[in-house]
Amino acid sequence: MRAVDLIRKKRDAGEHSREEIDFLVSGYTRGDIPDYQMAAWLMAVWLRGMNRAELAALTEAMLYSGEVLKHAEIAGKKVDKHSTGGVGDKTSLILAPIVAAGGLTVPMISGRGLGHTGGTLDKLEAIPGFNVNLTLGEFSRVLRECGMGLIGQTAEIAPADKKIYALRDATSTVENIGLICASIMSKKLAEGIDALVLDVKTGSGAFMKKEEDAVELAEVMVETGKRMGKKVVALISDMGQPLGRMAGHSNEVMESIEVLSGRGPADLRELSIELSAWMFFLGERTKSVEEGKRLAEEMIASGQAKAKFRQGIALQGGDARVVDEPERLPAAKSRAEVTSGAAGFITGTDCEQFGIALAMLGGGREKKEDRIDHAVGLEFHKRIGERVEKGESLATIHYNSDAKLDEARGLIAASYQIGESAPGQSQRLIHRILGV
Amino acid sequence: MRAVDLIRKKRDAGEHSREEIDFLVSGYTRGDIPDYQMAAWLMAVWLRGMNRAELAALTEAMLYSGEVLKHAEIAGKKVDKHSTGGVGDKTSLILAPIVAAGGLTVPMISGRGLGHTGGTLDKLEAIPGFNVNLTLGEFSRVLRECGMGLIGQTAEIAPADKKIYALRDATSTVENIGLICASIMSKKLAEGIDALVLDVKTGSGAFMKKEEDAVELAEVMVETGKRMGKKVVALISDMGQPLGRMAGHSNEVMESIEVLSGRGPADLRELSIELSAWMFFLGERTKSVEEGKRLAEEMIASGQAKAKFRQGIALQGGDARVVDEPERLPAAKSRAEVTSGAAGFITGTDCEQFGIALAMLGGGREKKEDRIDHAVGLEFHKRIGERVEKGESLATIHYNSDAKLDEARGLIAASYQIGESAPGQSQRLIHRILGV
Repeated sequence: MRAVDLIRKKRDAGEHSREEIDFLVSGYTRGDIPDYQMAAWLMAVWLRGMNRAELAALTEAMLYSGEVLKHAEIAGKKVDKHSTGGVGDKTSLILAPIVAAGGLTVPMISGRGLGHTGGTLDKLEAIPGFNVNLTLGEFSRVLRECGMGLIGQTAEIAPADKKIYALRDATSTVENIGLICASIMSKKLAEGIDALVLDVKTGSGAFMKKEEDAVELAEVMVETGKRMGKKVVALISDMGQPLGRMAGHSNEVMESIEVLSGRGPADLRELSIELSAWMFFLGERTKSVEEGKRLAEEMIASGQAKAKFRQGIALQGGDARVVDEPERLPAAKSRAEVTSGAAGFITGTDCEQFGIALAMLGGGREKKEDRIDHAVGLEFHKRIGERVEKGESLATIHYNSDAKLDEARGLIAASYQIGESAPGQSQRLIHRILGV
Repeated sequence: MRAVDLIRKKRDAGEHSREEIDFLVSGYTRGDIPDYQMAAWLMAVWLRGMNRAELAALTEAMLYSGEVLKHAEIAGKKVDKHSTGGVGDKTSLILAPIVAAGGLTVPMISGRGLGHTGGTLDKLEAIPGFNVNLTLGEFSRVLRECGMGLIGQTAEIAPADKKIYALRDATSTVENIGLICASIMSKKLAEGIDALVLDVKTGSGAFMKKEEDAVELAEVMVETGKRMGKKVVALISDMGQPLGRMAGHSNEVMESIEVLSGRGPADLRELSIELSAWMFFLGERTKSVEEGKRLAEEMIASGQAKAKFRQGIALQGGDARVVDEPERLPAAKSRAEVTSGAAGFITGTDCEQFGIALAMLGGGREKKEDRIDHAVGLEFHKRIGERVEKGESLATIHYNSDAKLDEARGLIAASYQIGESAPGQSQRLIHRILGV
């Protein structure tokens, strides 16, 4: 078998056998197949697609390219959530403490910033001292002690995914349903979980802008997960505008603490409770999703979720005082307002552009080697349906360097659609739930 | 400008500006853009295509990535031929001496084996001592002395093409009309020629298997060449079966010498004369193609072409005695027959498979680092339309190692289509001539 022939086969819309996919994945992971051949194959896959059988084979090859955790020493169910990402999507930081406080184990292996979206690991690193690079032994100890652990992919976990993912990022082959599914599921299934809640975003700030694409991705992931014996549901949730009012790393940690404190914006709170509830239900901690919601609310109201967050931060080397003194998080030196050029109602946003503007200011990566400025952020003042006056602030930029400030400001301003009347349709936060 | 965005643009079927193509080609040539990004872009181009404006920009960017020869010191016209390659296509070795003997200059920069086809440089290297790696200074001296020179791409000539071509070979992005055109034309226009005859192959042994694809490639190349002020014609010639009776490096040198000696198979002789005639005509050596044919015949009959071949070989360090004593060429240790499993008429061949079988035996490259066994070869005994008896030999394999002998033999046997009656249609050697 030769890589060049398999590239040709996919280029010509052929269907790979399980053996062919194993050959490519294991060869690439070992370094026998060079980056450039994998890049060509990935682009061919991007443009030609994969069927469900190929996808299952790819997911499995990537999963078994490394260690698959068992957590045999931890009693009870292990559950996790995965979001396909968006702007301001910080629910992982909120629901991990809620669900761990509620008695389940959340062994969460997350990623870094991807395109216009932020990554959970990057956000956690805004907390001084927080170490996302635990060994699997340390991860296991943290999970035993507090029921939640948030780490990055170690070298042992799905090494094929780590390598392929970095390559996709550099070759514009990220936004593909099959490749996204295989990447997510291979990593998540390696966590040793019993159940998984998927939060698949749709709208202008999501990778899957069209709802039918989000649904397709959700279906494919649910099918792949169930085929491997896991309980899986997928929520299709709205990313037509930022989730919550904050984007940027320090900003998002602060807003997460707000929600864990029983405050915070309604949309973020609602989605965090909903996702936590599904985790409780699938993890058999509650008999229904409704009961799960009540448990989640209780974990917040009682302060147990916040306490769990403190404990989790401390166990991973972070400064847990940030939970009560958010001013300890890195803060940007300056602020600038993005004002509206017109009066009217916000009818929509080009949400992805907010993420791009944030990256431009240093709060995201253009290349994977780039360092992130955790202090930089955006604060959104207006949501879809709200009224804005001419000259009123739409958003506040928290910045350290004004090198690209004007460009970012222009981008943000242009990303709000302002009309004469409020949009008729109400903005649903959760569009659909699949896999139930 | 970022490569990742340009990959995305082409992936999404966008049209590149001249500046974008310059950025990609010059960035890749300098090493600022890595192989894996170029590989992804090439696959996107392969699947999405390029329009004529993009193609002209790509050709020009590749041409001016290096030195463009002038040959100001050489009087008279400089002409060349380029073939898109096939199995047994050795006309370069025949027409370079014919045309140089006839008084024109042939500054031929050729390539190495490509997929299932052989490369002129590899064939020349079957001649003991023959050096295809001349400097441009040595090339110029050889051209001045004997009117023909056959070298490989130097580092100075279209370095972008050299680098892109190697990458395409390893990523199954070779067979694309736009990329083929840009590769050929950038290299050929760098030779400093006044006129170019293109031999575009069609049929089962050609890259362009369908005649309409061959015609499209021919049209695109003719247009690109003419746009740059050159005289260009393209012949569409048949590659539905091997050209001549010999494939493999030593074998093809031997058969070329046969034709230069006034012997050899009719098809190879006819095509060589036709191509030489067009070179004479476009190079204004003769007033018509017919007159060009007569001049080519005369160069053979008088022995002048053969003498020119001896002179050319010697000037490039080769053992010119091979022209008269072909047994000095490397010969394979063993021979094996491929016999027919049925009686009937040859109705067609899967000609590409002969090239693959040859490569399998060591007479071609699977990876670009592979060494070629020049002695290995195939000898074809039956042409389309000829009768074969059960058990009669279809072809003789000249081999050194029997590691893959059975596999190669099976492949060759299976590549002959044998029917009950001879195919009704006559096999045209030259299908069309374009650009006149």
